[in-house]
Amino acid sequence: MAKIAVLGYGTIGSGVVEVIAENAAVISKNAAEEISVKYIVDIREFPGDPFEKLIIKDFSIVLNDPEVSIAVETIGGTGIAYDFTKSCLLAGKSVVTSNKELVATKGDELLKIAEDKNVNYMFEASVGGGIPIIRPIIQCLAANVINEIYGILNGTTNYILTEMINSKTSFEDALRGAQAKGFAEQNPEADIEGKDACRKIAILSDLCFGRHVDPDDVKTEGIKGITPQDVEYAAAAGYKIKLLGRALRTGDGRITAYTAPHLISAAKLPANVDGVMNCVVVHGNALGEAMFYGAGAGKLPTAGAVVADVIDTVKHREKRKTIKWDDGFPGYVTDSDLLSSRFYVRARCAESNIKGLFSPGGAEFIGNKTAPDGVCAFLTKETGGAELKKILAGLDILSVFRVLD
Amino acid sequence: MAKIAVLGYGTIGSGVVEVIAENAAVISKNAAEEISVKYIVDIREFPGDPFEKLIIKDFSIVLNDPEVSIAVETIGGTGIAYDFTKSCLLAGKSVVTSNKELVATKGDELLKIAEDKNVNYMFEASVGGGIPIIRPIIQCLAANVINEIYGILNGTTNYILTEMINSKTSFEDALRGAQAKGFAEQNPEADIEGKDACRKIAILSDLCFGRHVDPDDVKTEGIKGITPQDVEYAAAAGYKIKLLGRALRTGDGRITAYTAPHLISAAKLPANVDGVMNCVVVHGNALGEAMFYGAGAGKLPTAGAVVADVIDTVKHREKRKTIKWDDGFPGYVTDSDLLSSRFYVRARCAESNIKGLFSPGGAEFIGNKTAPDGVCAFLTKETGGAELKKILAGLDILSVFRVLD
Repeated sequence: MAKIAVLGYGTIGSGVVEVIAENAAVISKNAAEEISVKYIVDIREFPGDPFEKLIIKDFSIVLNDPEVSIAVETIGGTGIAYDFTKSCLLAGKSVVTSNKELVATKGDELLKIAEDKNVNYMFEASVGGGIPIIRPIIQCLAANVINEIYGILNGTTNYILTEMINSKTSFEDALRGAQAKGFAEQNPEADIEGKDACRKIAILSDLCFGRHVDPDDVKTEGIKGITPQDVEYAAAAGYKIKLLGRALRTGDGRITAYTAPHLISAAKLPANVDGVMNCVVVHGNALGEAMFYGAGAGKLPTAGAVVADVIDTVKHREKRKTIKWDDGFPGYVTDSDLLSSRFYVRARCAESNIKGLFSPGGAEFIGNKTAPDGVCAFLTKETGGAELKKILAGLDILSVFRVLD
Repeated sequence: MAKIAVLGYGTIGSGVVEVIAENAAVISKNAAEEISVKYIVDIREFPGDPFEKLIIKDFSIVLNDPEVSIAVETIGGTGIAYDFTKSCLLAGKSVVTSNKELVATKGDELLKIAEDKNVNYMFEASVGGGIPIIRPIIQCLAANVINEIYGILNGTTNYILTEMINSKTSFEDALRGAQAKGFAEQNPEADIEGKDACRKIAILSDLCFGRHVDPDDVKTEGIKGITPQDVEYAAAAGYKIKLLGRALRTGDGRITAYTAPHLISAAKLPANVDGVMNCVVVHGNALGEAMFYGAGAGKLPTAGAVVADVIDTVKHREKRKTIKWDDGFPGYVTDSDLLSSRFYVRARCAESNIKGLFSPGGAEFIGNKTAPDGVCAFLTKETGGAELKKILAGLDILSVFRVLD
């Protein structure tokens, strides 16, 4: 019998308790051992909750109970979650989490403590919610050199963009709709400004390229600047706009990692990942391209991924799982502006003002019958982001998004 | 230093040797140990091959060399491959394979021997080639009750169907094109009759539902019966035709598993998995739906998956990986004809001959301007396959395919 403590009884924490109760038979079978929740730590009251008798306020009870070998951290953030996680690891308890912010910022430190103490720090649920992605990368692709990874990593923004594309609504209306349906928080900044996707691509970069990426080094652009006109121009050219987190090797042992809206050909699979669903695309030198798709958030999908980590930890008491990455170095994450690609540009000017700025055929204008007068949009040939900024200097530029080819 | 032997120096076997040489740095890092090929066993001559000096004809050298702890079986089939695998496992050597036929038919027996001998028998590459699928199922979904799994499991047939859909060619022409491009073998029966997909869905059923499924119990229909007219009718109704392997729980501890062409809504992701690419869709009770996509075959993608299993085996010398399933029982795999769904039917008769056979609205006719006179096609409401056969008895039925809703 493995006894665990759940730290934080919010959406995911209560989902973990629910999955362990609901799927007890399959969990015991797969772990080859029964798993039960001994404590739920939360400072709030939950009168009438079916698991009320397990709820305690004092974390030190967990810390000092040798019977508890695994703690599930579903508090979120980098404050108490960090303190509790560190304390548990130092006390020789494994920790499983869905806390992407903590993994992205302190994962390297916490993994080192886990290694020293011969316990596990596991976080499958921190990226892609229920989508299996971390194990596929570190185990199934272990014989591949991974060259690139990108994905639709945030359900809220993907829901909003899908609404803008399918219902031709404005960003503001789509956001209000998402809030009304519970797909966006009342304070949606972390999602719509791309911070959540930024943390996730930082974690994926850590795993794929083997060095720590500070989320502060990941240039991050959200979806506020996308207008219905951009959506229409993109559609007219055969593309959809999606917010991607993306990271790739740039040579010389360095990478770039960034989060920004992209135009993706409507014929490609990620362009058809709609609503709150997420996907992750990975390129390995032996594998080629693979994609993982599923619910990137949500109580039960995420809780299922957390409990899978608990099962794996129970099965690996004798020999810990090895997840680790090296430190970064100054300049390891290069500026994404140096990365070449095609770009989509929308500008308040006539096509004739643009033509002379590019070599012949360098700007492919997009026809759009509903576009207002005095505005044009075009796709560039492959060019560096910084170079493009120089070319467009002085013009009234409304939108610039990268094209993912 | 882990020394391995590669049994069978064909496409996948030579890919394994190539990946180990090419990606030596990342492999050593991920395995925390260097991995080198000590022997390649093949009865053929390979003059001038860069690894010629490793090639031996006598398998007993591998068997009797205690330095070799892992054998890679890339022979294929259930003859010598079975003998060699069993001998290696009994001699206390782990075996890694891409041999779906052997895993599907003898996997349960070989896994039991591996368990007895405290070694591993691993086969990530046997389903979906390079697509990570087995670990995601047995590890990442370990806290889920899996209710259903299906997929486009064969690249050859998916290439042929994609050509039929996009280029409006006949099955015969598409097959010849696939053969010319090397996407279909000169003897393509195992692929086009669905046998390859059948073996893969049998293995996926073993893993998802925990009991052995004999491939002979999996009703299997290939793609020979699909005509350009079916493709056109499907398109007119908003569907694409894909060959799926599919397995699901049918209650009472039983499942059904079968391989057959299906109509899938063109808006769904699997309908847009084209060419030689494969996908696997899985439904978990906590996760909901997830999809894994990538190259389902091919030398390097498959070899990369084999080598990942070798790495995992090297890392788990002290504690073996537990993959196993229970025996089946008579009637465990129920007849897929008992499964209800909507169906697509094409018949040589007038619509008026059909209408009276179904309750009002029970047959939704598909308009198709290019259809020849005297032929009609329709979609039924949800009905059992056996029931539908009774209703249609006596009519000149040209095609019947299930609709995946």
